[in-house]
Amino acid sequence: MQQARLSRRRFLAASAGVGVCGWAPAQHAPDQSGSSEQTGQTVLPSWNEGAVKASILDFVARVTDKRSTDYVAPRERIATFDNDGTLWAEQPVYFQLQFALDRIRALAPQHPEWKEMQPYKAAMEGDHAALAAAGEKGLVEIIAATHAGMTTDAFNKTVSDWLASARHPRFDRPYTEMVYRPMLELLAYLRSNSFKTFIVSGGGVEFLRVFAEEVYGVPPEQVVGSSGAVRFELTDGKPALIKEPRVEFVDDGPGKPVGINRFIGRRPILAFGNSDGDQQMLEWTAAGSGARFMGLVHHTDADREWAYDRASPVGRLDQALSEAERRGWTIVDMKRDWGTVFATPTASGSRALQ
Amino acid sequence: MQQARLSRRRFLAASAGVGVCGWAPAQHAPDQSGSSEQTGQTVLPSWNEGAVKASILDFVARVTDKRSTDYVAPRERIATFDNDGTLWAEQPVYFQLQFALDRIRALAPQHPEWKEMQPYKAAMEGDHAALAAAGEKGLVEIIAATHAGMTTDAFNKTVSDWLASARHPRFDRPYTEMVYRPMLELLAYLRSNSFKTFIVSGGGVEFLRVFAEEVYGVPPEQVVGSSGAVRFELTDGKPALIKEPRVEFVDDGPGKPVGINRFIGRRPILAFGNSDGDQQMLEWTAAGSGARFMGLVHHTDADREWAYDRASPVGRLDQALSEAERRGWTIVDMKRDWGTVFATPTASGSRALQ
Repeated sequence: MQQARLSRRRFLAASAGVGVCGWAPAQHAPDQSGSSEQTGQTVLPSWNEGAVKASILDFVARVTDKRSTDYVAPRERIATFDNDGTLWAEQPVYFQLQFALDRIRALAPQHPEWKEMQPYKAAMEGDHAALAAAGEKGLVEIIAATHAGMTTDAFNKTVSDWLASARHPRFDRPYTEMVYRPMLELLAYLRSNSFKTFIVSGGGVEFLRVFAEEVYGVPPEQVVGSSGAVRFELTDGKPALIKEPRVEFVDDGPGKPVGINRFIGRRPILAFGNSDGDQQMLEWTAAGSGARFMGLVHHTDADREWAYDRASPVGRLDQALSEAERRGWTIVDMKRDWGTVFATPTASGSRALQ
Repeated sequence: MQQARLSRRRFLAASAGVGVCGWAPAQHAPDQSGSSEQTGQTVLPSWNEGAVKASILDFVARVTDKRSTDYVAPRERIATFDNDGTLWAEQPVYFQLQFALDRIRALAPQHPEWKEMQPYKAAMEGDHAALAAAGEKGLVEIIAATHAGMTTDAFNKTVSDWLASARHPRFDRPYTEMVYRPMLELLAYLRSNSFKTFIVSGGGVEFLRVFAEEVYGVPPEQVVGSSGAVRFELTDGKPALIKEPRVEFVDDGPGKPVGINRFIGRRPILAFGNSDGDQQMLEWTAAGSGARFMGLVHHTDADREWAYDRASPVGRLDQALSEAERRGWTIVDMKRDWGTVFATPTASGSRALQ
């Protein structure tokens, strides 16, 4: 209990430490009339100078300059970001899957039958090969067992408890400290230029909303994600929303423009992803009229993070990479373009993990 | 063509005329520290003095006063409004149904078979009895014929063209002038007190989004509604979203808290409706902790608008009215509480229709 409380404090300290709520670059952001050359040294400090950083600054300068033919009214400045692999890491497995596996272990004492039953046995033993063999059917069973049959409030609590205590196996830090500092800077920079920032993730919308506001400064109503069905229930006059074991919407691949249309109702002018699951979101963004920015984070840094793309089972970047190269979309080379990778919870600027 | 353009101008003039974009009460709204007594004369000018207006001012004063035990942080100030019968009128038929019937007539030349086929024949002849006899199955066919099989962009255009030219049968004015001035004032007043205002409607989300921003000042991403399935399609490298003839989500009754959870991810602290379809939204709002405001518009004014409640086929208000009376929710008596009903497009304050 004591440990959980301390960890919760660590979680909040982490998000406060990276300054999301009172993010300095945002508050001291350049006036919109300032050129990117004058301000390039002070904004996006974790981005190395080069063509990629310049392409971001140039785009924002053009769409916010009323004298520019590329000017976009503030209400149309919609920016959408994938989450896994774009705002936070996704290796060795998607963090929400790790949450589900940890939940299986936590629930196991109530389910003695799981000891000899797949995919639960594999989940408890962290046997990724057996889990992969269980396929999508196995995954759906694990998600159903850990994400349904409870109220939305109860589910949110299991997520925040997990975030407060779980630690990443390689970096030995809370998952909420596995977020990318350059992307936090970019989110804040866009908001300081009157963009409205959205997350559009293949991950579960209710999982994401538990931490998106503290960690990314993105409020729940600006988080779009996959979802399971939810049922309204009135018991003794007390209403509750119950999560059901039925997938309702998969916000991935072609589902991303569909989700954008459904939840946002406007086409983004800027979109950032990192995998083939983001390809259609970038295509949909690119197909609008006027100035557009399409970005991909390319994981090229095995030392500070991971290096993977066309052959990775997690966050595969293959067709979208080819399309980005062909169409001249911005490709962030993590190793080359990011001076710092992770947001650290300490203000002293320790680079121990970077 | 000329007429359509003029009508479009009328539409925009109407929304500008009621000052939604530069809404005076919002800009000159009282400082949050001002008491409601001091400011009661200048805000919500179309609301008559009395218990109902006082209950609104009192609630807003309490949740925005940092010294109050009822204080609510700005990011939690979520307000949700039903649309039909709450923000604009809904008689003699829901306006979106009228749009569908008008579309059937517009599409009829391409469908000669409709002349002898129900429910199309009834739709073309405006035969409401035959339409009612066709039941939900008939309605679904009409919605499918008029709301599907086209891109989202094409659909949006049919809606904006219709809004620019169609006129309400009783009041002979565009439907977008059938909105309630007191509710526009309330939306603006809440926003000036750092509320985020959402529409949560049983109507179609894409229909609503065409006019919600100009007319109500509510951007597309803050409109929640019923929706049909949408499919992403890439043709010769050009992406499009195609509306399919399949209902995906019904944002009505118990669907409203589900929709609020899915789209907003936070529980409202204020909700306004006018019919039994809003009952669960109000229950869900009421069940949160801290200060809450639940409001119902009761249509009691046959002279200036309509009078209907427990027996009306459109916008029936029966069980929700009983629950509101029992639980002490705020019931707006249109005749008693509203000095003005409709927002008028002229700034001169003509009361011809009121």
